[in-house]
Amino acid sequence: MSSTLGTLFKVTTFGESHGKGVGAIVDGCPPGMALTEADIQPQLSRRRPGQSDLATPRQETDQVVIYSGTESGRTLGTPIMLLINNKDQRPRDYSEMSRIPRPSHADFTYQMKYGIRASSGGGRSSARETIGRVAAGAIAEKWLRETYGTEIVAWVSAVGDIESPEMDIERITRAEVDRQIVRCPDSAASGRMEALIREVLAAKDSIGGILTCVCRNVPVGLGEPVFDKLEARLAQAMLSLPATKGFEIGSGFAGTRMRGSRHNDLFVRKADRLGTKTNYSGGVQGGISNGEPVVFRVAFKPVATIGLDQETVDFDGDSVTLAAKGRHDPCVVPRAAPIVEAMAALVLADMALRQHVRQPVASP
Amino acid sequence: MSSTLGTLFKVTTFGESHGKGVGAIVDGCPPGMALTEADIQPQLSRRRPGQSDLATPRQETDQVVIYSGTESGRTLGTPIMLLINNKDQRPRDYSEMSRIPRPSHADFTYQMKYGIRASSGGGRSSARETIGRVAAGAIAEKWLRETYGTEIVAWVSAVGDIESPEMDIERITRAEVDRQIVRCPDSAASGRMEALIREVLAAKDSIGGILTCVCRNVPVGLGEPVFDKLEARLAQAMLSLPATKGFEIGSGFAGTRMRGSRHNDLFVRKADRLGTKTNYSGGVQGGISNGEPVVFRVAFKPVATIGLDQETVDFDGDSVTLAAKGRHDPCVVPRAAPIVEAMAALVLADMALRQHVRQPVASP
Amino acid sequence: MSSTLGTLFKVTTFGESHGKGVGAIVDGCPPGMALTEADIQPQLSRRRPGQSDLATPRQETDQVVIYSGTESGRTLGTPIMLLINNKDQRPRDYSEMSRIPRPSHADFTYQMKYGIRASSGGGRSSARETIGRVAAGAIAEKWLRETYGTEIVAWVSAVGDIESPEMDIERITRAEVDRQIVRCPDSAASGRMEALIREVLAAKDSIGGILTCVCRNVPVGLGEPVFDKLEARLAQAMLSLPATKGFEIGSGFAGTRMRGSRHNDLFVRKADRLGTKTNYSGGVQGGISNGEPVVFRVAFKPVATIGLDQETVDFDGDSVTLAAKGRHDPCVVPRAAPIVEAMAALVLADMALRQHVRQPVASP
Amino acid sequence: MSSTLGTLFKVTTFGESHGKGVGAIVDGCPPGMALTEADIQPQLSRRRPGQSDLATPRQETDQVVIYSGTESGRTLGTPIMLLINNKDQRPRDYSEMSRIPRPSHADFTYQMKYGIRASSGGGRSSARETIGRVAAGAIAEKWLRETYGTEIVAWVSAVGDIESPEMDIERITRAEVDRQIVRCPDSAASGRMEALIREVLAAKDSIGGILTCVCRNVPVGLGEPVFDKLEARLAQAMLSLPATKGFEIGSGFAGTRMRGSRHNDLFVRKADRLGTKTNYSGGVQGGISNGEPVVFRVAFKPVATIGLDQETVDFDGDSVTLAAKGRHDPCVVPRAAPIVEAMAALVLADMALRQHVRQPVASP
Repeated sequence: MSSTLGTLFKVTTFGESHGKGVGAIVDGCPPGMALTEADIQPQLSRRRPGQSDLATPRQETDQVVIYSGTESGRTLGTPIMLLINNKDQRPRDYSEMSRIPRPSHADFTYQMKYGIRASSGGGRSSARETIGRVAAGAIAEKWLRETYGTEIVAWVSAVGDIESPEMDIERITRAEVDRQIVRCPDSAASGRMEALIREVLAAKDSIGGILTCVCRNVPVGLGEPVFDKLEARLAQAMLSLPATKGFEIGSGFAGTRMRGSRHNDLFVRKADRLGTKTNYSGGVQGGISNGEPVVFRVAFKPVATIGLDQETVDFDGDSVTLAAKGRHDPCVVPRAAPIVEAMAALVLADMALRQHVRQPVASP
Repeated sequence: MSSTLGTLFKVTTFGESHGKGVGAIVDGCPPGMALTEADIQPQLSRRRPGQSDLATPRQETDQVVIYSGTESGRTLGTPIMLLINNKDQRPRDYSEMSRIPRPSHADFTYQMKYGIRASSGGGRSSARETIGRVAAGAIAEKWLRETYGTEIVAWVSAVGDIESPEMDIERITRAEVDRQIVRCPDSAASGRMEALIREVLAAKDSIGGILTCVCRNVPVGLGEPVFDKLEARLAQAMLSLPATKGFEIGSGFAGTRMRGSRHNDLFVRKADRLGTKTNYSGGVQGGISNGEPVVFRVAFKPVATIGLDQETVDFDGDSVTLAAKGRHDPCVVPRAAPIVEAMAALVLADMALRQHVRQPVASP
Repeated sequence: MSSTLGTLFKVTTFGESHGKGVGAIVDGCPPGMALTEADIQPQLSRRRPGQSDLATPRQETDQVVIYSGTESGRTLGTPIMLLINNKDQRPRDYSEMSRIPRPSHADFTYQMKYGIRASSGGGRSSARETIGRVAAGAIAEKWLRETYGTEIVAWVSAVGDIESPEMDIERITRAEVDRQIVRCPDSAASGRMEALIREVLAAKDSIGGILTCVCRNVPVGLGEPVFDKLEARLAQAMLSLPATKGFEIGSGFAGTRMRGSRHNDLFVRKADRLGTKTNYSGGVQGGISNGEPVVFRVAFKPVATIGLDQETVDFDGDSVTLAAKGRHDPCVVPRAAPIVEAMAALVLADMALRQHVRQPVASP
Repeated sequence: MSSTLGTLFKVTTFGESHGKGVGAIVDGCPPGMALTEADIQPQLSRRRPGQSDLATPRQETDQVVIYSGTESGRTLGTPIMLLINNKDQRPRDYSEMSRIPRPSHADFTYQMKYGIRASSGGGRSSARETIGRVAAGAIAEKWLRETYGTEIVAWVSAVGDIESPEMDIERITRAEVDRQIVRCPDSAASGRMEALIREVLAAKDSIGGILTCVCRNVPVGLGEPVFDKLEARLAQAMLSLPATKGFEIGSGFAGTRMRGSRHNDLFVRKADRLGTKTNYSGGVQGGISNGEPVVFRVAFKPVATIGLDQETVDFDGDSVTLAAKGRHDPCVVPRAAPIVEAMAALVLADMALRQHVRQPVASP
């Protein structure tokens, strides 16, 4: 297990889906910042299942409680423990699962790696594992916003083969994103995405999608070459999320088809700083933020839990037919927006503190 | 700076392109393995510039010397210091660069981050920075091969809009890859790629491309959820390379357009183990290797150094026209193959040692 | 803040004395080990205040609850979150403290470091901070015992100038230690220590002391030169405890007065292994355990909170007289025994897993 | 192996005594500092053997070369590789050693841990291993001195049972220390120490000793509770040195015999800050520096290599008589002064950068 992320702004998460609770410890949050549960709850609520009839109806209220690290509503600079109790602690009937590794789930690999696995609900590979990340990310984001004016917005830019048109990354807001049930701010594309998800749901199947995320007002200088380049740590953070299969920043894979004469971001004077005319770099050059918006995309595979029959084998290698019971999210991307935002905030906060070291020292 | 990668198999790199030398310390290589310079040199030679008339003619012999950590040709389990002297230590004439940040290079961001930068050749953002990685990776790869029979092969699967057909990932070898000057093993595609690179070179421009990499005989169980999932650490490793803009594993971005019923990798009995019928997962489920080949792709942008005039501004914001002098690689992907392989080996070796911890203890 | 210890067996602690709770996350505990709260509670109870009339009567039941990382009483290999709710969450009246930094407490340094501090009870510098360590240490100890038969026993070897005679480190048990109220297993010395503590208590003063700790059945080979030598990590662990001022292993400071001819531990054949005739090394040579008992001593200063008047200054530098109200431990060492044992267990478990990596790999 | 120390100011050392060279990579040194070999050489020369007829006559010139991380005599903020070539790379005749583990050396434990060991000269447990530390420490010290005016001075306060009188820790300088061949600045004590060392040398024996170290002008606020308290990291650093057996800070073990009413350091107004009347805390309260001098002591055991016959056993358990040939240091403490200073500097620089993070951010 490796449940700790970050060098100076550190988060350590815990919790299985059917244990007593899930959550995180945030160690390294700067002292003196106003912080109560109300600052954290909104992103947890955006992540919560049951927000629409498109998503799993599992009722999780996911109320966060701060156990340490604050006093009188201010951070002390000490570890902040965030606990979200699980409502449903009774293992459901997973007896069938115990002998059949679900295809494209983590049952097989957890069993092989640990020699044991949570009998129910996916354990640490479950979507509930992301709750601690979202709670911790809300703290990171608040600090970034108050310190640098940083804004982080993720939205659904594709569901299956339906793609959103380009958004105005300088202006897009979470309010616009949340206006649409699928969290794609373009209403036409959003409608078609919704229809596709309903179709897939009716077919007891699932579908993948893409999230795009922009981080504005990221200070120049974040990222620690060579192994902790900003895009490297963002890529790690995103690929550590369940169901992700790809990450690209700026021009990404499309940029491989471009020529340097077009791809190079020429410098221009912008107000009080040097900026670039284009932003194929995605806000990062040489692994370090350059002051332009940081823009990246994350690929999510279709949900592995489907209602259709699947011909597979059990742990003994014997043929079985498996079909998930109950209802499940047919498409994970709408709920993944706050999760992607949280991971971006955690990486940026850590990188900001690491660059903070290089500020001139106050006189001895 | 963050120049150390890995938890148990650790590499720390050093060196600027015009300093005395570049290299790495490998700490954590298991003791007792046969190791001499001859085990390391081949990958350095594959990385070296000047291998063909397509690449920069800068002559770098890049001879590695082992300074510590071995005795009588065996590793001691102690830090292995690998030094490659720079042949050309004289800064070339970079005076123009000192006041003009090259577009899509790291000049601007290094200057802003550190308040100082190497006057010449890109410092740590230079391609020479990868030499230490390749040398260290060769050690990791040797250990993986001898311990698990692991084979790692990377090849050029796209240059610009020319794509290679699918390769047989179970069989492709480095010998096949090296048979073609552009390191795309399909000779038809390879020919067209070569033509495109020559065209771009003649136009004083540059072009991007994609590398695909397969790792065979990766033992089941590698990857440390949740933040050090195998694909997360591979993504970090690849995005920490100069000029990379994207990473995808298994089905990647294309997988987002698939339905779960097709994308799920059904289990089948395979010889002495459970395997999967398809491999959209790319050899990783729940962040842990499942015994199938690990397959991923890395996007490289077009080289930023081009001979064409570029209208940009200097550090003061004043307009200037910039054109690179001398010759440069118009396309980085052929030489990037051994670098991608090295990074994969470093990640896998670290993950293998971390999983090694979970082996049963010999009786007390 | 740096609240995480360990590389493979990792503990992260949290909690202020007057927040909602204290505890720890243990990440990296091997999977499949039987574990319930009953395995942890005994050491917490040995640490608890109010065990005798010599100690602070603050009533803390300190009941631990496992929130994650186990199922059906077995560890899953995932993070184990241990929570101990605080009974007394109301800040007492600490208004006087808010303007007066208590001498030899952490009030001044926390305020200067963080620009803010817990208004009450010491925050993270409070003795309650050690609860998470003890809970985590109990898990480490159980694993060591079941895997290697390791036994860890700490006892009070000095209170003020009263010293215990040498104990038989091969045989001493916790039961013997706990037979005496001051946890010095020699009854004569124990009686005099108790009398001294009562005298100091009556005088509203405090007194320091020394704990000796032995770890038996530590496998050969633990410790990672050069910076994580076993004694180096033990020293860090012990000096990270509140009120500690010194650490010595084996011959320690007394060894500086010896000649090599006497101090050298000559090898002898012992049953199935090489052992040493004497053990001035304290079970460690070259930073690596040698199979002999690991023996070390930890110095604890007199408790800083005393009832006597102290002439000091407030944060503005103005003279004030300060005297602690209420009752406090006049001597910390009896309760420190389980804390020292916990820290030893955490270091040894981490080192054991790190050495575990070097076991031969099962065939590919 | 664990050859990396520090979180932000990181040093990674390498090298065996009879390999090609020894040295270190310093990663995280702030950019823009003037730095050439001349800044590093003096401490290496103070560490070098052969400085007097009391020490081993092995001739090591130990010339350091900076391979990376600087340009035009200024640090770039990138990894600084420091290489010191070994003059004597030919393994001496160590054939006898190969079957006899030297008592109180690391031969036995290295062999058991790694299954292999350097056939000659101690490998990583050799005194030469400290060269990389001293070189790296010189850089840390220069940065501390230029940034905070920090001064670090270590001296010999005991050889065997001969103790130096208390020194004036506010004023003692390296020049005074170096005036005496044994590096005890009190000339009377120094004379007796020298006589004792000569006596021990004549007897083919060895003797231990104690170094005291003071760090002046350490800024308030260094140290990261709870596991990286300043004294905890100093203790780790010192106990990671070869031959050390103990560490104490401030009152140390003697403080355990004091009462709180005397031991508490009362606050007083001092020029522009709060200080303490006494300094039993040793400059650290709650794990954080308080602005008073940081004072600690390190115990070194008698050198294990002695010329006298020793009755021991070989790896097979058969009795043998062993006597070291050639000349060896009979007492390590005089040469250890710059090594202790280096380790202190490395810890303080890392902690200073970590506290640096908490400076107010320049306006967004």
